[in-house]
Amino acid sequence: MGKLLIVGTVAFDAIETPFGKTDKILGGAATYISLAASQFEVDSAIVSIVGDDFPQEYLNLLKAKNIDISAIEIEKNGKTFFWSGKYHNDLNTRDTLVTDLNVLANFNPVVPDHFKDADVLMLGNLHPNVQLSVIEQMEEKPKLIVLDTMNFWMNNTLPELLEVIGKTDILTINDEEARQLTHEYSLVKAASKIQAMGPKYVVIKKGEHGALLFHDDNVFFAPALPLEEVFDPTGAGDTFAGGFVGFLAETENISFNNLRNAVIHGSNLASFCVEKFGTERMKDLSKEEVEKRLEQFKQLTQFDIELE
Amino acid sequence: MGKLLIVGTVAFDAIETPFGKTDKILGGAATYISLAASQFEVDSAIVSIVGDDFPQEYLNLLKAKNIDISAIEIEKNGKTFFWSGKYHNDLNTRDTLVTDLNVLANFNPVVPDHFKDADVLMLGNLHPNVQLSVIEQMEEKPKLIVLDTMNFWMNNTLPELLEVIGKTDILTINDEEARQLTHEYSLVKAASKIQAMGPKYVVIKKGEHGALLFHDDNVFFAPALPLEEVFDPTGAGDTFAGGFVGFLAETENISFNNLRNAVIHGSNLASFCVEKFGTERMKDLSKEEVEKRLEQFKQLTQFDIELE
Repeated sequence: MGKLLIVGTVAFDAIETPFGKTDKILGGAATYISLAASQFEVDSAIVSIVGDDFPQEYLNLLKAKNIDISAIEIEKNGKTFFWSGKYHNDLNTRDTLVTDLNVLANFNPVVPDHFKDADVLMLGNLHPNVQLSVIEQMEEKPKLIVLDTMNFWMNNTLPELLEVIGKTDILTINDEEARQLTHEYSLVKAASKIQAMGPKYVVIKKGEHGALLFHDDNVFFAPALPLEEVFDPTGAGDTFAGGFVGFLAETENISFNNLRNAVIHGSNLASFCVEKFGTERMKDLSKEEVEKRLEQFKQLTQFDIELE
Repeated sequence: MGKLLIVGTVAFDAIETPFGKTDKILGGAATYISLAASQFEVDSAIVSIVGDDFPQEYLNLLKAKNIDISAIEIEKNGKTFFWSGKYHNDLNTRDTLVTDLNVLANFNPVVPDHFKDADVLMLGNLHPNVQLSVIEQMEEKPKLIVLDTMNFWMNNTLPELLEVIGKTDILTINDEEARQLTHEYSLVKAASKIQAMGPKYVVIKKGEHGALLFHDDNVFFAPALPLEEVFDPTGAGDTFAGGFVGFLAETENISFNNLRNAVIHGSNLASFCVEKFGTERMKDLSKEEVEKRLEQFKQLTQFDIELE
């Protein structure tokens, strides 16, 4: 069992999809990542910040999943980061309605002493300087640093982002963002350019079209499970990342073959996340449900053509 | 070795992509289907029509692949069907510039006697009445009837199209067309509705995002091979269909497990088709190249998570 340190937002989301809308509910990258990772035998902790408007009940939910929340700072008289978005009818695109940084505006992350030796460091989507600061606080370089980011940081803090990318082992990124970062339309070429920036591995997330893992000349692909209904895509990418790093932290094996399996575990968990609003589906997900759906993934992708 | 009868266009195409443009070159659904199917041990024939402006050299090319061309009618003083299109920069969408039906306008297909007992009937994209006429000319129901169609026939000849769909075992169709046909956004629901129209199996083609095979509650997915460069997508869907039916005609096994393999073979061949203009890549494709890329498909999709 490895130690997994997760840096990212713990937040309020308000979501509107063609199927309904929510008030402020539990959200944030670190929330989704940690819930997904809690499906594995890992020792995980979150570094984040919330305001004192953040319900104790949400923190208890994370704690009940054996997630160490001692490094989630609670800022007195502060307001928790709030994001609100509305999905279009095809659920593939969305408009951001509100982004209130609140306590995130001046966030100085502090890595707790007992996680400075984490095996896996997952840098969820946040300001690159926050991500850098966490890397620098580690006692020694973790066995694996995984970075997630988004176009906002490419547009506004590219030099800092490139510095973080240079220090990471695996970058997870959307297809459109990979194209923006590299000015290459072909994802094969984009992944190759990203590898030249530092990361040995690149995971390109294509939403309902699955995810690609690149390493040198090797490529692996995991489809998204075809579902009758996608209800709310919020958190699917972070859930994918959480399953991915959770499995890697549990198995402590970063061979390409094991990374393939990690991509499948991530895709598998993401397929649950989108079935209900927010974290609703993830918070009570049983091991049996997860195992059963892994079998569906096998059925979905495995074939038996014998080659000479 | 089974008998495969292919109905579809044999045509001239003029193609423009971001990488260049062609004059009138060899094209047509039956052309791509038969070239792909010729990679397998099958006894195949084309039912189609061309004008006497169609170069003998093109017919010789098909003949050299052991494709029976005796039922390609050559209309005296007729002009061959001509299609011209221009792809957008992402290669996922295109504008049709010219569609000259020419000899296709009054095409009465005649199934040759020695193929009235074909095992597999592949109905390439054509007027549903032409497809119906071919079905009716068969001595007995083929073991497998596979139908390909497009939105044009949904818009203009829906009752006739629904009649053909009701008589087929497998429908291959694009994702957008599946949605249009069923008024369902979810491809899982769309496939289920299509199965209720007749076909036991549904293949939904998603272009660069791969292909899905549905049968009852079973789903199988084959990705498109990630390529450095897609040069010209023309004919990729027909090449997929040709690999699919070619493999099924060779193996004469229509179990779901064998259909999975057929989907992989189709995807594999389509990955070659898009590498050059028109049929250029397909006409000299070697068994060794095909086999090597099947190994890449295995690498791309296979994983080894053990379930209890």
